[in-house]
Amino acid sequence: MTRIYGDPSSFVPDALAGFVDLYSHYVQPVPHGVVRSTATPEGKVAVVVGGGSGHYPAFAGYVGPGLADGAVCGDVFASPSTRWVYDVARAADHGGGVILGFGNYAGDILNFGLAAQRLRSEGIRAELLVVTDDVASEGQGAQGNRRGIAGDVVAFKIASAAAEAGYDFDETLRVARFSNDRTRSMGIAFAGCTLPGEKEPLFTVTSGHMGVGLGIHGEPGISEEPIGSPDEIADLLVDRVLGGRPEDAPEGGKITVLVNGLGSTKYEELFLLYAPIAKRLREKGYEIVAPQVGELVTSLDMAGASLTVTWLDEELETLWTAPAQSPAFSTGTTIQTSPAPTYVVPEEERADYTGTPAAAAEVGAAVAGHLEAVRDALAAAEDELGRIDAVAGDGDHGVGMTRGSTAAAQEARSAADAGAGAGSTLAAGADGWADRAGGTSGVIWGVFLRAFAAALGDEGRPEAGAVAQGVADGIAAVQDLGGARVGDKTLLDALVPFGDRLTERVEAGDDLRTAWASAAEAATEAAEATKDLRPQIGRARPLAERSLGHPDAGAVSLALVARTVAERL
Amino acid sequence: MTRIYGDPSSFVPDALAGFVDLYSHYVQPVPHGVVRSTATPEGKVAVVVGGGSGHYPAFAGYVGPGLADGAVCGDVFASPSTRWVYDVARAADHGGGVILGFGNYAGDILNFGLAAQRLRSEGIRAELLVVTDDVASEGQGAQGNRRGIAGDVVAFKIASAAAEAGYDFDETLRVARFSNDRTRSMGIAFAGCTLPGEKEPLFTVTSGHMGVGLGIHGEPGISEEPIGSPDEIADLLVDRVLGGRPEDAPEGGKITVLVNGLGSTKYEELFLLYAPIAKRLREKGYEIVAPQVGELVTSLDMAGASLTVTWLDEELETLWTAPAQSPAFSTGTTIQTSPAPTYVVPEEERADYTGTPAAAAEVGAAVAGHLEAVRDALAAAEDELGRIDAVAGDGDHGVGMTRGSTAAAQEARSAADAGAGAGSTLAAGADGWADRAGGTSGVIWGVFLRAFAAALGDEGRPEAGAVAQGVADGIAAVQDLGGARVGDKTLLDALVPFGDRLTERVEAGDDLRTAWASAAEAATEAAEATKDLRPQIGRARPLAERSLGHPDAGAVSLALVARTVAERL
Repeated sequence: MTRIYGDPSSFVPDALAGFVDLYSHYVQPVPHGVVRSTATPEGKVAVVVGGGSGHYPAFAGYVGPGLADGAVCGDVFASPSTRWVYDVARAADHGGGVILGFGNYAGDILNFGLAAQRLRSEGIRAELLVVTDDVASEGQGAQGNRRGIAGDVVAFKIASAAAEAGYDFDETLRVARFSNDRTRSMGIAFAGCTLPGEKEPLFTVTSGHMGVGLGIHGEPGISEEPIGSPDEIADLLVDRVLGGRPEDAPEGGKITVLVNGLGSTKYEELFLLYAPIAKRLREKGYEIVAPQVGELVTSLDMAGASLTVTWLDEELETLWTAPAQSPAFSTGTTIQTSPAPTYVVPEEERADYTGTPAAAAEVGAAVAGHLEAVRDALAAAEDELGRIDAVAGDGDHGVGMTRGSTAAAQEARSAADAGAGAGSTLAAGADGWADRAGGTSGVIWGVFLRAFAAALGDEGRPEAGAVAQGVADGIAAVQDLGGARVGDKTLLDALVPFGDRLTERVEAGDDLRTAWASAAEAATEAAEATKDLRPQIGRARPLAERSLGHPDAGAVSLALVARTVAERL
Repeated sequence: MTRIYGDPSSFVPDALAGFVDLYSHYVQPVPHGVVRSTATPEGKVAVVVGGGSGHYPAFAGYVGPGLADGAVCGDVFASPSTRWVYDVARAADHGGGVILGFGNYAGDILNFGLAAQRLRSEGIRAELLVVTDDVASEGQGAQGNRRGIAGDVVAFKIASAAAEAGYDFDETLRVARFSNDRTRSMGIAFAGCTLPGEKEPLFTVTSGHMGVGLGIHGEPGISEEPIGSPDEIADLLVDRVLGGRPEDAPEGGKITVLVNGLGSTKYEELFLLYAPIAKRLREKGYEIVAPQVGELVTSLDMAGASLTVTWLDEELETLWTAPAQSPAFSTGTTIQTSPAPTYVVPEEERADYTGTPAAAAEVGAAVAGHLEAVRDALAAAEDELGRIDAVAGDGDHGVGMTRGSTAAAQEARSAADAGAGAGSTLAAGADGWADRAGGTSGVIWGVFLRAFAAALGDEGRPEAGAVAQGVADGIAAVQDLGGARVGDKTLLDALVPFGDRLTERVEAGDDLRTAWASAAEAATEAAEATKDLRPQIGRARPLAERSLGHPDAGAVSLALVARTVAERL
């Protein structure tokens, strides 16, 4: 378990401080991440990697010449916010555009995706490199459903080597995505990891057994089997990974192989496992090029291992073996470098609300008050929300909602104090939530509140119809963003009934207070009803089974927010 | 705990097979270890490092250009045998002599020491680099009592860099020993490691506490304290390590710093601990040069961390930062290499016993039978001996005695079958025990039986007086080797009374059978009496206290061997 930490909530920045001090010849700090401390030629395509923290050497350990240009560091196992991704990408860009590399998880898809949109809107070329190597999570059939695990390392290295070799943006993106298409992984877990500040691991595996098909965020695997001999484990992993061989990849020929330790499975064990894996792969006609065995993408102190195979063509082999140096991965001859200038964080412009009428500013203050009440209610419910989330997730929903609503309340109050009206106050709160919460719920709430705010305006007290329209716009924005539908056991299962009832009651002539109270009731009932639903998105099947009988944490917190506001209208 | 393994007794060679396959560009296998697979100039001083296994990257991970020339890999936490050290050193020698680097443990001192003697007797220059960095084990006052922990890495790197830079043997040895003199370490443990095949860890630490002053072989530490904040842990480690500052080292100035993870303490935690350690050291006027944070010398999956400081002068700084590449440690620019020829193990000459008279050969066969009986008795007692040893040691005494006596019986039978007399048969058994058992007991039994055998001759049935003389010679050889005395709670506490009684009864006119039976009784009583003794050698104080009330495992097994032979005379 994690034992060396101060304040658990500052675990990531505290660890990053030591990391940056230690590796200042490779990296320099930027807000919520690192970029290279060595000079980069103008026009080079930048590769920025990232995701939640707790996976070292992923992601900051892979920044350096021949490897990534920057890494975004979210909270432990939680996606960095859109803003954090954007900020690191801005710092890493050298005029050649940015490829954003990350594993396929809902929160990362949302936040990296929105960050790419924002970069493009500012004229910076930005595209996503979504790593999808885990054959164990391929339950739904579509490739897009595979999670990203240790295959990250292959895709990031190959993208970076292409960029370093002077490939243009399209060519870098092409070969990077092709390397992902050619990569498959499969893992086993013996024991779960323990988050900083927690006493119990995220999951346990029956003694003498292994969870087959682990994830790297505390997902225990899709089935449990007795631990076999190294030969048997090698057979299992090789068979499953080769079973996922990409259609265009030859049977036999050159491959690279990663045997990855999840955290507390030791080098000796990994070497011991590598021997029969290599033997089997060679028996099947494969030639192993530049294999890597060790801790590559970890999950804190989780016990377990995974096998990754990438089917190489000549170009991939050249890029995989090209020189690279970074804190955690060095290969080939030394790349000559010179120091980069110290990155200076650009100053932000402050919004000017001086034109807002006094009456409108009063409504802004009321909105800030609502968000403060929401913050208090969510903080009081934090532990309970965490427990609900832990049934089928990683248990961080309570913490994430508290962090997001605290930031939202603070930014909203700051805007209201500066004279903002209802819309601008809520928009400021939305940006605070989105920028500082991280994770999936952070970006969803940010997007919802941003769209909601746009319908309110800053002219005075919004009409009930404008509020209902704002909620409806927010729902549409969330649906557009995440691709989830009602019945998928997400917050939409409570949010859509809330919005529908609100519109219905407002159209029937109720005042806002009455309509909202009725809508909050509908949300509460709908959240309770999510007990009977299976989650459908980004979850392996057994987790879906396990979650039956438990409501969705996101729907429960949405209903709580709705009731809290209802009491104040 | 260790979970990926096949036959626990082949854990080390199984892991080594994967390691060598993976890193064939750095290393090639030799019996019980590795040497470089890259060419080495003739006349270069060779640095051979080693010790027990389970400490990866120590020791095989540090073989490569700019680092060591070879590594000897003992069984898990057990010293390699003299023969294994000798074999690897022979393979690594390129005519410039061999520096044998290892941490200060009784078994390693014996085996590396005897191997150096043997190398010198064959005209190969060989000296010991005994690493003694652990300030926590400095209980007895003398520097020689400090154990070697992560400071190994500094001493090995500096010795290797000096050799690579073309230093001659004396100069390499001088600067290597100086780097050890300038190095101090101190560690903390949160949880013990579990040996392959075992269910329980070697020790446990009370939840929320840390063992202060850990060892790397399952020693839990010299005191137990509540786990502090990273700042408090940093204070503790910095204060204790700086408190051990070498007399000739300046207060302030250049140092290098290692923060070492013991196995399951994660990178994030080590970075988090490094930040306040670096801050404190800088506040005290130190400049940190090329620090290393990560898993450097582990103890399987033990949880814990250690701090190492080396006070650098200009020469040490140059050597510490000199280029080096190896499986686990790379720094500086790439060293150009070319492949070395594959090492061919020299063929052994087989002994020729064809001149032995038939009657003498019959006695040889009887001696082989005695050793087979001893093997069976020790195998039956293996678990019990392990349990006794685990009270104050690492619990491997039973396994080691079984392995040694099995090898001894096999070699003795092989010699007897080829016609060897009593002396040659016992000598062959002695060599088998010494060469293949490893650990401390292996070398002691080998030396004892070798000296014993020399007194027996091959002429026929030895006289009782010759047998008593052989035992006395064996005792003298063991005392000379290990420096232990009666009362130190070692096998000498039973062996000396055994030898004394045997000589006394033989001189009194008893026949061998009667005299031996009486001596075996004396040994049994003496072994029982070791319950009241504290071990004095190579043990931290609390272990000495803990062992009161438990007999010494080595004395118990000696008495068992004596009784087993008594029944057959």
